[in-house]
Amino acid sequence: MTKLTDMTLEQLEDFKAGLEADLELAKGNRVKLDLTRGKPAADQLDLSAPMDHILSGDYRAADGTDVRNYGGLRGLPEARQLGAELMDCAPEQVVCWGNSSLTLMYLTVDTALRFGLWQGERAWNRHAAPKLLAPVPGYDRHFTLTESLDIELVNVTMTDQGPDMDQVEALVRDDASVKGIWCVPKYSNPTGCIYSDEVVERMARLPELAAADDFLVLWDNAYAVHDLEFPPARLAPLMTLAGEAGTADHVVMFGSTSKITYAGAGLGFVAATETVLTTLEQRLGTFSIGPDKVNQLRHVAFLADRLEEHMAAHARLIKPKFDAVEAALREELGPLDVARWTTPKGGYFVSLDTRPGLAGKVAALAAEAGLSLTPPGATFPYGRDPDDRNLRIAPTFASVDDVAVAMQILVLCVKLASAEQELEQRQKR
Amino acid sequence: MTKLTDMTLEQLEDFKAGLEADLELAKGNRVKLDLTRGKPAADQLDLSAPMDHILSGDYRAADGTDVRNYGGLRGLPEARQLGAELMDCAPEQVVCWGNSSLTLMYLTVDTALRFGLWQGERAWNRHAAPKLLAPVPGYDRHFTLTESLDIELVNVTMTDQGPDMDQVEALVRDDASVKGIWCVPKYSNPTGCIYSDEVVERMARLPELAAADDFLVLWDNAYAVHDLEFPPARLAPLMTLAGEAGTADHVVMFGSTSKITYAGAGLGFVAATETVLTTLEQRLGTFSIGPDKVNQLRHVAFLADRLEEHMAAHARLIKPKFDAVEAALREELGPLDVARWTTPKGGYFVSLDTRPGLAGKVAALAAEAGLSLTPPGATFPYGRDPDDRNLRIAPTFASVDDVAVAMQILVLCVKLASAEQELEQRQKR
Repeated sequence: MTKLTDMTLEQLEDFKAGLEADLELAKGNRVKLDLTRGKPAADQLDLSAPMDHILSGDYRAADGTDVRNYGGLRGLPEARQLGAELMDCAPEQVVCWGNSSLTLMYLTVDTALRFGLWQGERAWNRHAAPKLLAPVPGYDRHFTLTESLDIELVNVTMTDQGPDMDQVEALVRDDASVKGIWCVPKYSNPTGCIYSDEVVERMARLPELAAADDFLVLWDNAYAVHDLEFPPARLAPLMTLAGEAGTADHVVMFGSTSKITYAGAGLGFVAATETVLTTLEQRLGTFSIGPDKVNQLRHVAFLADRLEEHMAAHARLIKPKFDAVEAALREELGPLDVARWTTPKGGYFVSLDTRPGLAGKVAALAAEAGLSLTPPGATFPYGRDPDDRNLRIAPTFASVDDVAVAMQILVLCVKLASAEQELEQRQKR
Repeated sequence: MTKLTDMTLEQLEDFKAGLEADLELAKGNRVKLDLTRGKPAADQLDLSAPMDHILSGDYRAADGTDVRNYGGLRGLPEARQLGAELMDCAPEQVVCWGNSSLTLMYLTVDTALRFGLWQGERAWNRHAAPKLLAPVPGYDRHFTLTESLDIELVNVTMTDQGPDMDQVEALVRDDASVKGIWCVPKYSNPTGCIYSDEVVERMARLPELAAADDFLVLWDNAYAVHDLEFPPARLAPLMTLAGEAGTADHVVMFGSTSKITYAGAGLGFVAATETVLTTLEQRLGTFSIGPDKVNQLRHVAFLADRLEEHMAAHARLIKPKFDAVEAALREELGPLDVARWTTPKGGYFVSLDTRPGLAGKVAALAAEAGLSLTPPGATFPYGRDPDDRNLRIAPTFASVDDVAVAMQILVLCVKLASAEQELEQRQKR
C-alpha cells in the first residue's frame, strides 16, 4: 500500500471508490457493534464468582467488628490495606467507602470547593472562578463532574510520558485560580500512557510551585494493577515523593476494584494525609453511617494474596482484544500514514488520532455501518476536541471476534474519510 | 409507692438516701451497658444469613441485566418494586441507590439547596437563610445533615399523632424561607408515634399552603415495616394523598433495608415524582455510574414474598426488650409520677421525658454506674433540649438481660435525680 499523500489523483479516486463499495457491503451485514465504554466482559466478571459465598457465614473482621452492622466510616482495616496496595501508600492513608472512586472524587472536589480540605480553611469558592487542569485527551467523567460544580477546565497537552509538565508548571505558577490537575497516571484514559518517573516527581513538587495555596493533585489510579504484560510496569510512588517534597497534604489518590471484581459492585478507595482524611470523614459523617463492610470483607477474603494472579487472568481474556485492535490499525492504517494510535500495555483503552477534522466524520460513517464509538469530543472538556481528531476505542466488552469485525469497520471508515479529505484538499489547491 | 410530690420531707429524705445507697451498689457491679444507638443485635442480623449465597452464581436481573456490570442509575426494576412496597408508592417513583437512605436525604436536600429539585429552578439558596422544620424530639442525623448545609432548623412540637399541624401550618404559611419539614411518620424516632390519618392528609396539602413555592415534605419512612405487633399498624399513603392534592412534586420519601437485613450493607431508597427523580438522577450521574446491583438482586431474591414473615421474626427477637423497658418504667417510675414515656408498637426507640431540667443529670448519674445513654439534647437541633428532659432509649442492640439491668440503673437514676430536685425545690420555698 502507498501512503495516502503519495497516491496519484487517479489512485486516490480508485481507492475511495473501492472503500465506498466496501462500506456499502459492511452496511449490508447489519451488524450492531459497540466499542464505546470501558466495561469488563462477562467472562471477566465470572473470574470473581467465588466471591459470592466466600464469607460462608463468618461476618467478623480481623478486629472483631461485625461487618453486618452500622459504623466504621473509614472502612475495615483489611479493606484499607487492600486499597493501600492498589494505590501504593500506607493503609492509614486510605478510606474505603462506597462502590465507586468517582463518588469519592466528587466528594473530594466538592469538599475542596465548598468547605476546604484542610479543616475549614482555604475553600476554592473564595475565588470567583476556580479552574482545574485537564490533560487531553482525558476521561469524560472527570470533565462532567468538574463542569457540574461550575469549575472551569483548562486543557493541557498529553504526551506519551504524561502531561506536558512545562506547560502545567507555567499554568499553575502564574494563576492562583488554578486549583488542581486531573491525572490518570497509569494506563491513562484514553491514551494508555504511564506517567514517567520525571513527570511523577515534578507532579509531587507541583503544589509547592503553584500560586494557589490550595492546589490539589487528583490522582485517579483507576488502572493501577490492570496490566496486560508481566512483570507489570511500575508507576513512581506519588505519595512517597510528595511526602519527601512536603506536599503530601495536596495529593489525593483514588482507586477501585470496579475492573478487578465487579463493575458497580466493587469497592471505592481514596487516599490522602490525615488532615485531608479527617475533613473527608467529617463530610462523610453528615450523610453516611458507614460503607458496606460485608462487601469489603468479601473482597478482602477473595483478593488478598492473589491479586496479581487474578489480574493475570483478566489479562489473558482481554489481551487478544487489544491485539486485534493493534493488528487492524497497524496493518490497515499504518502503510497509508493517515492516523496515529497508542499501543498500551494495560488499562482499558486505545486512543486513535485521525487526520485533523475527521473524528466526527469517522464516527458518523461507523454508525451507518452499525458500529457505535464513544462520541468524538468526549475525551475533551465540554465535548470539544479542538482538532476533531481523537477517537477512544474500548475493546474489552465485546468478544474477540466482534472486536475484529468492529475494527474492520473502523479502519474502513478512517480510510474513507481520509481519502475524501485528501481529494477535497487537492481540489482546493 | 407514693407519688414523689406527695411524700413528706422525711419520706423524701429516706427515699433519697436509699437510692444513693442503691446507686453505690450498682456502681460496684462495674457493668458496661449501652442504650445509645438504634442498632440491630447479632441475632437479628443472623436472620438474613441465607442472603449471602442466595444468588448461587445467577447474576441476571428479570430484564436480563448482568447485575455485576456498570450502569442503571435508578436501580433494578425489582429492587424499585421492593422499595415501592416499603414506601407505599408506585415502583416508577422509586430510585434504589447506595446502602443508606441518609445519603439519599443528603442528596435531596443538597440538590434542593444548590440546584433546585424542579429542573434547575427554585433552588433554596436563592434565599439568604432557608429553614427546615424539625418536629422535636426527633432524629439527630436529620439535624446534623441540615446543619452541615447551613440550613436553619426550627423546632415544632411533636404530639402522639405526629407534628402539631396547627403550629406547622402557621409557620409555613407566614414565612417563605421555610422550605420543608423533616418527618419520620411511622414509629417516629424517638417517640414511636404513628402520624394519624388527619396529620398525613394535612401534610399532603402543606406544600399548597406554604408561602414557599419550593416547599418539601421530607418523609423518612425508616420504620415502615418495623412492627412489633401484628396485624401491623398502617400509615396513610402520603404520595397518593399528595397526588390527589396536586402537591406530589413536593413530597420526597425515603426508606431502606438497614434494619430489615444488614445495617450498613442494605439498600437505600428514595421516592418522588418523575420531575424530581429526573433531577436527582442527573445529579447522581455526575458522581456515580450506578449502585451495587448485585446487592439489590440479593435483597430481592431474599425478601420478595416473605417480607412480613421476616419482620415478624425480628419482632419476636426485639419485643421482649421493649417489654423490659416498658415494665421497668411502669413499675418503677409510674407510681412516683416523675416521668412520661412512650410505648411504641414498632420502630427502634422509646422516648422518656423526665421532670424538666433532669435529663443531663440522669445521663451523668447513669454514666457513673456504667450505663451509656444517647447524649441528652441529641434529639433536638443543635443538641439543645430547651427543657433538658428528653432521653432516648434504644433497647435493640443489647441482650434482653442487659436491657433489664440497664433499665434498673436508668430508673434508679431518674428516681434519684427527681428526689434531689424535689428536695431542692422544697428548700427554696
